[in-house]
Amino acid sequence: MNLDVLFYPKSIAIIGASSREKTVGNDVVKNLVQQGYQGKIYPVNPKIDQLYGLKVYRDVDDIEGTVELTVFAIPAKFVAQEVKKVAKKGAQAAIVISAGFKETGNVELEEELAATCNKLGIILVGPNCLGSINAEYHMNASFAAIMPPVGDVAFLSQSGALCTAVLDYAKDLGVGFSKFLSIGNKAALNELDLIKYLHADPKTRVICLYTESLNNAPKLIATLKELNRGAGATPKPVIILKSGRTAAGAGAIASHTGSLSSGDSAYQALFAQAGIIRANSVSELFDLAQVFSMNQMQKVETVTIITNAGGPGVLTTDAVIESGLQMAELAPETVTKLRSFLPASASTHNPVDVLGDAVGEVYEQTINAVAQDPNTDAIIVLLTPQSMTEPAKTASAVVKMRRVSKKPIMVSLMGKALVAAGVKILEKNQVAVSAFPEPTAQALAKFAQFSNWSREKNEAFLSYQDVDKVKVAQIFAKAKSQGQTSFPEAEAMEIMKAYNFPLLKSAIAKSPQEALAIMQKFNCQAAMKIVSPDILHKSDVGGVSLDVNTKNVINEYEAMMTRVAQNKPEAKLKGVLLMEMAPKGVELILGINKNTLGTMLMFGLGGIYVEVFKDVNFAFAPLTRTDALRLINSLRSSKLLEGVRGEAAVNKENIIEAIGRLSQLVTDFPEIVELDINPLLATASGAKVLDARIVIE
Amino acid sequence: MNLDVLFYPKSIAIIGASSREKTVGNDVVKNLVQQGYQGKIYPVNPKIDQLYGLKVYRDVDDIEGTVELTVFAIPAKFVAQEVKKVAKKGAQAAIVISAGFKETGNVELEEELAATCNKLGIILVGPNCLGSINAEYHMNASFAAIMPPVGDVAFLSQSGALCTAVLDYAKDLGVGFSKFLSIGNKAALNELDLIKYLHADPKTRVICLYTESLNNAPKLIATLKELNRGAGATPKPVIILKSGRTAAGAGAIASHTGSLSSGDSAYQALFAQAGIIRANSVSELFDLAQVFSMNQMQKVETVTIITNAGGPGVLTTDAVIESGLQMAELAPETVTKLRSFLPASASTHNPVDVLGDAVGEVYEQTINAVAQDPNTDAIIVLLTPQSMTEPAKTASAVVKMRRVSKKPIMVSLMGKALVAAGVKILEKNQVAVSAFPEPTAQALAKFAQFSNWSREKNEAFLSYQDVDKVKVAQIFAKAKSQGQTSFPEAEAMEIMKAYNFPLLKSAIAKSPQEALAIMQKFNCQAAMKIVSPDILHKSDVGGVSLDVNTKNVINEYEAMMTRVAQNKPEAKLKGVLLMEMAPKGVELILGINKNTLGTMLMFGLGGIYVEVFKDVNFAFAPLTRTDALRLINSLRSSKLLEGVRGEAAVNKENIIEAIGRLSQLVTDFPEIVELDINPLLATASGAKVLDARIVIE
Repeated sequence: MNLDVLFYPKSIAIIGASSREKTVGNDVVKNLVQQGYQGKIYPVNPKIDQLYGLKVYRDVDDIEGTVELTVFAIPAKFVAQEVKKVAKKGAQAAIVISAGFKETGNVELEEELAATCNKLGIILVGPNCLGSINAEYHMNASFAAIMPPVGDVAFLSQSGALCTAVLDYAKDLGVGFSKFLSIGNKAALNELDLIKYLHADPKTRVICLYTESLNNAPKLIATLKELNRGAGATPKPVIILKSGRTAAGAGAIASHTGSLSSGDSAYQALFAQAGIIRANSVSELFDLAQVFSMNQMQKVETVTIITNAGGPGVLTTDAVIESGLQMAELAPETVTKLRSFLPASASTHNPVDVLGDAVGEVYEQTINAVAQDPNTDAIIVLLTPQSMTEPAKTASAVVKMRRVSKKPIMVSLMGKALVAAGVKILEKNQVAVSAFPEPTAQALAKFAQFSNWSREKNEAFLSYQDVDKVKVAQIFAKAKSQGQTSFPEAEAMEIMKAYNFPLLKSAIAKSPQEALAIMQKFNCQAAMKIVSPDILHKSDVGGVSLDVNTKNVINEYEAMMTRVAQNKPEAKLKGVLLMEMAPKGVELILGINKNTLGTMLMFGLGGIYVEVFKDVNFAFAPLTRTDALRLINSLRSSKLLEGVRGEAAVNKENIIEAIGRLSQLVTDFPEIVELDINPLLATASGAKVLDARIVIE
Repeated sequence: MNLDVLFYPKSIAIIGASSREKTVGNDVVKNLVQQGYQGKIYPVNPKIDQLYGLKVYRDVDDIEGTVELTVFAIPAKFVAQEVKKVAKKGAQAAIVISAGFKETGNVELEEELAATCNKLGIILVGPNCLGSINAEYHMNASFAAIMPPVGDVAFLSQSGALCTAVLDYAKDLGVGFSKFLSIGNKAALNELDLIKYLHADPKTRVICLYTESLNNAPKLIATLKELNRGAGATPKPVIILKSGRTAAGAGAIASHTGSLSSGDSAYQALFAQAGIIRANSVSELFDLAQVFSMNQMQKVETVTIITNAGGPGVLTTDAVIESGLQMAELAPETVTKLRSFLPASASTHNPVDVLGDAVGEVYEQTINAVAQDPNTDAIIVLLTPQSMTEPAKTASAVVKMRRVSKKPIMVSLMGKALVAAGVKILEKNQVAVSAFPEPTAQALAKFAQFSNWSREKNEAFLSYQDVDKVKVAQIFAKAKSQGQTSFPEAEAMEIMKAYNFPLLKSAIAKSPQEALAIMQKFNCQAAMKIVSPDILHKSDVGGVSLDVNTKNVINEYEAMMTRVAQNKPEAKLKGVLLMEMAPKGVELILGINKNTLGTMLMFGLGGIYVEVFKDVNFAFAPLTRTDALRLINSLRSSKLLEGVRGEAAVNKENIIEAIGRLSQLVTDFPEIVELDINPLLATASGAKVLDARIVIE
């Protein structure tokens, strides 16, 4: 599937071209003609002859020669039949602008269209979309009036209406686009296909998208890991504005697109694992597009702020810290250098305050000194317009510095008219610039996050050789044959055992001597429970003893047999189950959550931590060691695992192992739809599964 | 003190007027002359004769007649002596632009200046400030070049440099100012004086300020409560951009102003109690200024979004919910009305989607229908520029609606050039408009918060008659006379008892019969402890018994006496202390934190909730019932007080009482500098102080 046809077609047919202005079928033809498309244009409409100087075809069949790309602006119910016609003309792709499919409840019509395209080998974009724009190729095959500036940002949007606003903002904010595509209902072509295409596109450096729902998280994670940090990869950030973070938002999506979205925690997990950068607002999407488009990938942990105003310096310091970056501590030689030319009352510590009367040259010297500072990874330059301030010269100083330094640099020229000359210079020279200082720090922090993520090596998924996959397959096969889907404690524990989860020791003894031998092997306190097919409530008949050890086990065995025999004479007694007593430890919960994106593992502390604080984390299976560590370490209550109030820290390696084995189990058996390990008991010496519950499809 | 002189002076002298361009002494004179100030201007400089067509005076003494306002732009060390001269000319105020005072370490120079002004009855603004601007009065007595548009927003700033940027932004963002003052180091005149003045100023509707540190929280709280919700009050919001939220930010403040600020939790408490609206960024300050300036105070809980684009509707729904507002559920009659004119595929539920081809008239009908909806408190109108869209007509529809409805309305016209005509109409007609949708919802949420806060009645502070203030005064007086400042458990509990905090029952018995009588009165389990001046470690000698009750008390008493006498024959035994056994309950901590703003109460759950989650809340003393409830209910762990896992809810009234008594105690005795009640044990039947510790100055 070569998606070039969506952006570089040699010919385009518009099915449903219209002579009525301000209609979709008119706008697309007008935009193609008036905005400089150089290929062949074939408007199709049975009722008109001419449109914007072009011949209009009565029918697709009348078109001479081949048509590469087709755009549909006719009622939904006619699209599929016209697709069949364009296929005969050699069409490789159909952009279906027409609405009236799934989003209005016509699910079957949409499925029929997708099936038709699939059968004919035609790439389907939409339906219910805005079209495609390639500014570099002078092609505006959409009904949005604006041809955006050429740049290196690709933009994909599930919302067509948002596209028109984005195009209008972009012109003002100095963001240019490499490719621009509205993907509508995504009946066939989806984000994953396009991300792969755009990642390989030499004209694209940054991939931005607005989406309301995604699918197949594991595939997206694997693809982006491979593309962005595989061997020889050139990292290209994927920035996503995902709406429906709240239940009300998700409800609004369902009502306007007819599609159900998973909860936001699933998206958070996906983004963390795939190295996707999340924009939380439309304006942040632009801030992020700028910083990624205009800076080179570097490891960034520390930032130095250069300012001519104390207050904004403090505000930006707050934003830097709150975004998770660190303020650089300037090296002594840098401080000495700054001292040599800055006035005595200037601050030569970070934030570096060059004072209100600093002219362009002072900024230039300061920027150069900080660019060479070994402790500074990135720079934020702030400027407020005062009498002596030279915004244009200061902007030029930044541009000069960029020719010799790879350090990411962002500028906030605070104000509007007074700093306009500086903004112009920076935009022209591809330096990220904003009017307000705080978003600068926030965007830089996300830049650092992705940049650092992309420098990490891809790891293997957690995997263990000592698991008995065959046995679990047999258990499930047998259950399925009997219509059983639910596996309560005992049966679930058998599955846990097959995957070698750490369990409490347990064994059945049929005589006092056997019981003693078992207890000697256990070497710990145990609980003793009567084994009998005839006894349901063991403790009611005296069939449970606690604190059994090597010394009292023989007596306890004999006493229990006598006691139970007295209490329930008719019961057949088969011996006792000896089970290691659970040690004191931290109760964890580990389970799965299956949703439209895939199967997530859920991990957290049990009891009130889940109930009151809802302190749980998620990650899609299969997991790497890093994923498992994130599950553990990013809990708000993670400090409890380190040992508080004199308690020992729990053994995290064992927790990671339990997470890893669960990841492997649910990956091996996709039929598992529910699974809870509760509790997973963590102590300094290990983590044990005390109880589990499994449901399969 | 009449601050009118800062904004409406009939005459202004500039001490340190300069002929050198781009200097402060030149800029101030130029701005006064060229921007239309109509009063008398007296530039003073011994070396020049003329400046911008004005006579320059060699010396202040040479000025004929009186001078109301004086502006100083001379080296710091000369300011105080010149102030003495202007006092003789009748000066009422001195705006000291000159730097080189406290911010560069010259604390004494600043104190001397403040003392001089105070003695002479001269209002001192600054030092180290930018000046004063009153656009309505055509007076720019500052060195900032821009005269802002006239409006109803007052702006005060501790940072002069930020002012120049704010003036430049304002022109672009359509925000106009009633008064604009840079207050610099605040050696004398501070925010409190100015807030009172501006609140009374008929030209001001909104008070905005940038600050790095405030002081006297109780005064500020009391003032703003009185001004904004006292009898017959006209609420005027105070919006504060406070920097130094992080430790690094606070450090940057200390280094550039020389002043120490309290931690951010203190500011959060102050803002909550005073009904101050916090802006978290410079751009949010403008968003908030707009929404407050352009809407009338109304109770707002629910919002309806009207949009021509699904995606932005969802994004804004997320922002509405995340900001703490609710999405309105439209009344059936509103839905019916909308159905009557909107196309079938439009969404008539909130967010109301009028569809991409909606023209101005459709928006108008929709806005009118929603404005009349009984379930909608406020409206957000979103618009993306599509072919059929009419931004100007849509804007006019909003303007029309505002003439008949008091419901707050905010508009986001998404885009730039394509929506410019609409923006212009809205700005001209004082409707809050923004390019991006999400900040609209966030600003509206803060508008609602203040609006609702200002509609609440002021309450009395928590206060109890049954406290023995005299006794505590005696204890402290005695301690002070002996150089004692620290009060460990027993002594602290005596103070707690004097203020009638709920304590565990306890009494001393000197015979078995007395012990029995006490236990009969207690009617609960008790601990028994030997009373002897000669025994330090009671449990070592068998001097502690638990679970004492009416049945075993006589035996326990006798056994303890015998046992202790055997173990420590030389000890003089005076009887036993019987103390109610602490019930099972939730351990709370209640204490104080004294900082530069005042004395705060700290409240939270004890143990890991403090250690691991740092889940504590703060409020300045004295507290109202609402303050106490906020301390309790806004804990993240507050659900634990409602009773989880089958436990009963604790008695909140008793917790409120403990908080109230502590508020009263620390207000009555400002010498208390440290105080911890740990734990305060809460159960379904009450809350008891189990242990306390007090330190006085």
